[in-house]
Amino acid sequence: MTATATVTKTKRTPVPLNGVDTPTLLATIGAVGAQPDLAKFRFRANNRWVSGTHNQSTMHGFYGAGGEHQHVASYKASGDHPAVLCGGDAGPTPVEWLLHALASCLTAGLANIAAARGIKLSKVESTVEGDIDLRGILGLSKDVRNGFERIKVSFEVEGDASADELKKLVMQAKDRSAVFDCLTNGVPVSVAVKTPAA
Amino acid sequence: MTATATVTKTKRTPVPLNGVDTPTLLATIGAVGAQPDLAKFRFRANNRWVSGTHNQSTMHGFYGAGGEHQHVASYKASGDHPAVLCGGDAGPTPVEWLLHALASCLTAGLANIAAARGIKLSKVESTVEGDIDLRGILGLSKDVRNGFERIKVSFEVEGDASADELKKLVMQAKDRSAVFDCLTNGVPVSVAVKTPAA
Repeated sequence: MTATATVTKTKRTPVPLNGVDTPTLLATIGAVGAQPDLAKFRFRANNRWVSGTHNQSTMHGFYGAGGEHQHVASYKASGDHPAVLCGGDAGPTPVEWLLHALASCLTAGLANIAAARGIKLSKVESTVEGDIDLRGILGLSKDVRNGFERIKVSFEVEGDASADELKKLVMQAKDRSAVFDCLTNGVPVSVAVKTPAA
Repeated sequence: MTATATVTKTKRTPVPLNGVDTPTLLATIGAVGAQPDLAKFRFRANNRWVSGTHNQSTMHGFYGAGGEHQHVASYKASGDHPAVLCGGDAGPTPVEWLLHALASCLTAGLANIAAARGIKLSKVESTVEGDIDLRGILGLSKDVRNGFERIKVSFEVEGDASADELKKLVMQAKDRSAVFDCLTNGVPVSVAVKTPAA
């Protein structure tokens, strides 16, 4: 028996916390564990070009937990290039949406993890910054990549736990984040095109 | 001289097309080529936790072209988990935002490329689907990744060009997409945490 194995873990009775229905969340995880097919999800975004670099996505239906679901609303979001890049600035840039996706995933996970650990949060804020050299996408240099060179996430977390426990929430959120994994490890992406019949 | 080298390329005079100010776009690319420091951009999203898995990002200021800029509006977007995953469904899921970012980047690029090539677009629509096995993020299996296993993009493109030329627009958009590069090749992401002083 090692020293670490002597640490007594108190079995915590899960209670709703931070706006998270912790008992239901843990029951859901248990149900998925017992029936792994429930874990298969397919998310979708349907995008249509508006004009110039302005386009709009709709996110409404998705498949998961053995069936088709719909969000409570048909969520819509625009993307555009800013004026300095000759766009109409009708929405955030696509790369800003990527930063939002990352911040949102880490923060949602953090709130769930804090609830499961019995930590009451009072503040979670983050800034996500991405550095990009546009010579890549503008086709001006073969030595410059198209995407972000690096992304930096800075969290501020406050709650009824020690600094160490609060930091560990962020680290666990990172270790269980879908978007963090996609961005740091990459995803196979296939692209197909349909055009009018000749 | 090879056969391909005998192809005469007509020097096209750029004209505004598809809502793209093509002459200004090409002049901008030329200016950046002459002064590479203008190509350095830093985009940001500021996110704050609301309750449960609901959080909201603001995308307003960004650095680029040698100075600080602001979008015409302080763009805000929510992220949340859906009801089936015990969330409040106050917005799209973080992974759907990732799909939106990809669709938006490819479509904006496509419109610019079509304008530069003198192709008038009449329709650009896409569906982006991502398959994910949630046993990863739920911590139920070490053999399942946290993120998407695969992403599939399906474009429908119509315009005054051949099917082959329209397909090539999508392929060039892919080859010059910041988000496509980030997702397929990965990005280094650093995460820092600030907590209240003890």
